[in-house]
Amino acid sequence: MRIKNKITDLFKIEHPIIQGGMVWVSGWKLAKAVSENGGLGLIGAGSMKPELLAEHIQKIKQNCQKPFGVNLPLFRGDIEELISVVITESVKIVFTSAGNPGKYTEMFKQKGIKVVHVVANLKQALKAESVYCDAIVAEGVEAGGHNGADEIPLSDLIIQLANEVKIPIIAAGGIVDKHGIEKAISLGASGVQIGTLFAASVESSAHINYKEAIVKAGENDTALFFKSIGLIRAIVNPFVEKAILSEKKNVPQEELVELLGSKREMLGIFNGNLEEGILEAGTGVGKITSVKSVADIFRDLVNDSSKNSLT
Amino acid sequence: MRIKNKITDLFKIEHPIIQGGMVWVSGWKLAKAVSENGGLGLIGAGSMKPELLAEHIQKIKQNCQKPFGVNLPLFRGDIEELISVVITESVKIVFTSAGNPGKYTEMFKQKGIKVVHVVANLKQALKAESVYCDAIVAEGVEAGGHNGADEIPLSDLIIQLANEVKIPIIAAGGIVDKHGIEKAISLGASGVQIGTLFAASVESSAHINYKEAIVKAGENDTALFFKSIGLIRAIVNPFVEKAILSEKKNVPQEELVELLGSKREMLGIFNGNLEEGILEAGTGVGKITSVKSVADIFRDLVNDSSKNSLT
Repeated sequence: MRIKNKITDLFKIEHPIIQGGMVWVSGWKLAKAVSENGGLGLIGAGSMKPELLAEHIQKIKQNCQKPFGVNLPLFRGDIEELISVVITESVKIVFTSAGNPGKYTEMFKQKGIKVVHVVANLKQALKAESVYCDAIVAEGVEAGGHNGADEIPLSDLIIQLANEVKIPIIAAGGIVDKHGIEKAISLGASGVQIGTLFAASVESSAHINYKEAIVKAGENDTALFFKSIGLIRAIVNPFVEKAILSEKKNVPQEELVELLGSKREMLGIFNGNLEEGILEAGTGVGKITSVKSVADIFRDLVNDSSKNSLT
Repeated sequence: MRIKNKITDLFKIEHPIIQGGMVWVSGWKLAKAVSENGGLGLIGAGSMKPELLAEHIQKIKQNCQKPFGVNLPLFRGDIEELISVVITESVKIVFTSAGNPGKYTEMFKQKGIKVVHVVANLKQALKAESVYCDAIVAEGVEAGGHNGADEIPLSDLIIQLANEVKIPIIAAGGIVDKHGIEKAISLGASGVQIGTLFAASVESSAHINYKEAIVKAGENDTALFFKSIGLIRAIVNPFVEKAILSEKKNVPQEELVELLGSKREMLGIFNGNLEEGILEAGTGVGKITSVKSVADIFRDLVNDSSKNSLT
């Protein structure tokens, strides 16, 4: 498979496959591996202080000649410091999420930085287009981690956005194989963003327990929870069971916020605590059956001769 | 408190307080106790074969001179046999639920039987009125047991129906004290139907374990589950936890139906299995603090001098 289109042109990459910027998972090593295999690697700033982000950007610049990007969650209290690092380090591609793209996109573009914004519904997509984002990530309800409140299935979202938006669409949520890529592109996307599959790769900085939990999980083993305080999709474990039941019992919001705390993602993904941590993952987990190198993952995703990838 | 209105007139009762017809709970003894205390007792046919229903009706006729009714779930495969029992035994008041009131209401009315239909939204209410039901039970999302798919809070439902429907409204769902009765009537209802409070009474035929579970449960201890196969509100126990988590994990509907089975209500309510049974109960459980006789319950509900009942 060799797709050349608006997304490969935009980022000057071989395959329209972008690795999601994920907390505790996508440092410079994973981003480098993805970029060197012809995709676009993203450093996930979500779990990094500004100094650590600077370090990761410097490392990837020293060790990788291919294009890479940084994912910036706009809700961060220190977002302006993170932005300042990105600019100082001359990053050329930024993916923004969880906030208003109207605030910083123009400034980024004036500095020659390509900006892609993550959206989960039409309104957000039109907003991103109106402030001149170069592309959007359309994230469906299948996606792991933080999720849009509208819970729109990816196929529906792509079809709707392809009808209404002119900038290229990168489909995200539940995509873990070539079939998923082909389907997204057939519906109107120009590229895909893949998270969970790379989170479970050799080069991911996540804990091995988390990677193995992804490998073990079946197709019905993730769930969406905490609708009232911000939806998250993760593998169902004792913590998530407690969260779901608390929510179902109409426990007050303050108690849900307290139950969630601030370290659950680190605990699960980075420290490998399978009971008390949050193991963010998309619905594609059922098809992830081993921890592979990024090179092997790309072989599966782009190799035409792979038999079961066209089913 | 002495309320005389369309509902007390309709049924010729002292207080506009109707006891819900509940499976495994409301046989002739509970219905008799409620009717003798000035409310309207209902025999719940939902868990009875036609012969058993006939027996219960005969018993209440022999032992109680006050008006009583029978609750008929219209979805029952043997509904025509149940109806034939009701007619043979000259029952004067029928509450119908879970089905189309258009089918039998006219026949009941021709035989001089008062018909009340249970509704959970405006459309159902208008339908019941159009086929000449004498009144409707407006059941809010707070109610225990089987629940309307629209999940409308009782207050909203009463206000909406009071604006659109001319026949009297009996409010149901979460009402367990005088304050609840006063609120329902102030919003436009003419009476109330109370379930869980009577399910936990001395005269209820339910298992003592179930009654004690109601007494123990706090205000956040019930949950709605099985939206995809028919909503139920019950006390959260190991079975309900399993049901909620299966649903959250998008387990296929057939598996949910299998998990539910056909005996869960009997197991929980009649056999007292607190782990594997369904303990149907409304959101008012938090205010039910002891197993009382129906006489004591009526004293609390209608006695003006009770201090905390007006808070």
